[in-house]
Amino acid sequence: MGTIGELGEFGLIGLLTRRLPRGPDVRLGPGDDAAVVAAPDGRAVATTDLLVEGRHFRRDWSGPYDIGRKAAAQNLADVVAMGARPTALLVGFAAPLTTDAAWAEGLYDGLADECRAAGASVAGGDVVGADAITLAVTALGDLGGRPPLTRSGARPGDVVAVRGRLGWSAAGLALLEEGRDGPAVLIGAHRRPEPPYAAGAEARAAGATALLDVSDGLVQDLGHIAASSGVRIDLDSSAVPVPDVLGPGGLRHALTGGEDHAFAGTFPAEAVLPSSWSPVGVVAEGTGVLVDGREPGRGGWDHFRA
Amino acid sequence: MGTIGELGEFGLIGLLTRRLPRGPDVRLGPGDDAAVVAAPDGRAVATTDLLVEGRHFRRDWSGPYDIGRKAAAQNLADVVAMGARPTALLVGFAAPLTTDAAWAEGLYDGLADECRAAGASVAGGDVVGADAITLAVTALGDLGGRPPLTRSGARPGDVVAVRGRLGWSAAGLALLEEGRDGPAVLIGAHRRPEPPYAAGAEARAAGATALLDVSDGLVQDLGHIAASSGVRIDLDSSAVPVPDVLGPGGLRHALTGGEDHAFAGTFPAEAVLPSSWSPVGVVAEGTGVLVDGREPGRGGWDHFRA
Repeated sequence: MGTIGELGEFGLIGLLTRRLPRGPDVRLGPGDDAAVVAAPDGRAVATTDLLVEGRHFRRDWSGPYDIGRKAAAQNLADVVAMGARPTALLVGFAAPLTTDAAWAEGLYDGLADECRAAGASVAGGDVVGADAITLAVTALGDLGGRPPLTRSGARPGDVVAVRGRLGWSAAGLALLEEGRDGPAVLIGAHRRPEPPYAAGAEARAAGATALLDVSDGLVQDLGHIAASSGVRIDLDSSAVPVPDVLGPGGLRHALTGGEDHAFAGTFPAEAVLPSSWSPVGVVAEGTGVLVDGREPGRGGWDHFRA
Repeated sequence: MGTIGELGEFGLIGLLTRRLPRGPDVRLGPGDDAAVVAAPDGRAVATTDLLVEGRHFRRDWSGPYDIGRKAAAQNLADVVAMGARPTALLVGFAAPLTTDAAWAEGLYDGLADECRAAGASVAGGDVVGADAITLAVTALGDLGGRPPLTRSGARPGDVVAVRGRLGWSAAGLALLEEGRDGPAVLIGAHRRPEPPYAAGAEARAAGATALLDVSDGLVQDLGHIAASSGVRIDLDSSAVPVPDVLGPGGLRHALTGGEDHAFAGTFPAEAVLPSSWSPVGVVAEGTGVLVDGREPGRGGWDHFRA
């Protein structure tokens, strides 16, 4: 089918938008100056991420379909972490004109399928030429009449709990960096995180006081809740789920590995959590995060320095 | 103040967000998983653009403040072209870690000031490291209970009218490419377009049947209205505003030059337009755009091939 440069801007837009299903929240899709997306709550939750080849993904380590799913997932998870229902994505796609059109199709298939998994659609976007493949993904969501689940509502006495994989993506990345090809489940987790999108509604139902998705590492991200809420978080490392497949170093990956897009929240002590959630600590008076009563080493993942 | 790499991700976010005013439509600003933006209509208008250094701007031709204003303007104009009121921007900023923090501050000052001009705020965003400076700007807007002004409503017998500068940015770009430094008003128009944001409300009040902002060139963009509406547009070149400052070639620039973000719309024949609007043609049965009764040459500006 040739390159995206041969297709040209409008040819490429046509090729890609034909692959995108449109859900009922997209009132006006691609093809006009802007899209129109349902926001029945009267407020729109909105978040955006930039992903740059070589920094956030490598084409020799991940195919276009997985890159698309991951790019969508990290933004959809941000919407869910506000206690909102994802409605739509806008996707900016910059690529060299020599890029295979089939690669772009795979990317958009991945974006579309991850949207389907979260109940959203791709409502619009932009395509431009550039030296490096860059994705700009914006996700929108609806709060359904309820207040957002921010990072600032944790209170001393709350329980801290997590839902989803922790450290799997970091372990998979470590394997790729060593040139290894297994365990496949870890490499797969790096290529394509699986945020448990139901976690937002579950946390809401259980009375969550704060919620976020773990994008930079559990300890670092809990630090954001601690700072925003003006509390200390005491993490019990023995309660953090570390499956055998994570191998030696598994606890470190589970505490500091990012990009799995698990969810971490705080809940009133009396909250009844579904069994898919693991209590991993408590909220106390003070500041910062303690792991087993001690200051953790610098961990997490600062996208900007890395 | 050093480089953005020395500041790190969270230091840079802090530096930049402190410069951003927050209007009443931003219910929750930067600092959580996502922003919350007012959408009182129950629908959100949403559009996104990617701008890549060397393709959409040059740092030796434009300073950071103007680049910020232009990046915001082109997205805010898209929202206005839907007949909506801009509420908020989300800004993704990718840059080499060696970029001066002062450059980034100038960029965000420009984004903030253009938002102010359009009545919007910067609600959130992302910063990442990259080899080339790249901006991903998403704009949101509110329809105020009215249907969107799309490209598909033009009807035979309608009048075509424009509001704003046409060809100024293209003329300014031509001067820069020739290494010239004047007329300053044209080079300024290239560096910093001034979309007449009031045009959306004016077009709505006058009963516009279709509206868009001229980003790729008048003839090409009117072609989008013609195609979406299933009509022909007959453009009268003698009615297109071509001020003396555009010099020789001014009509060509006015017909094919993009990036001024003027507005072009179609209106019922009996519509009363403010004097700031110039009638430039009529809508007829058929397809495509005729200029003075003839097929125009290929013009406009295909971002993707260029």
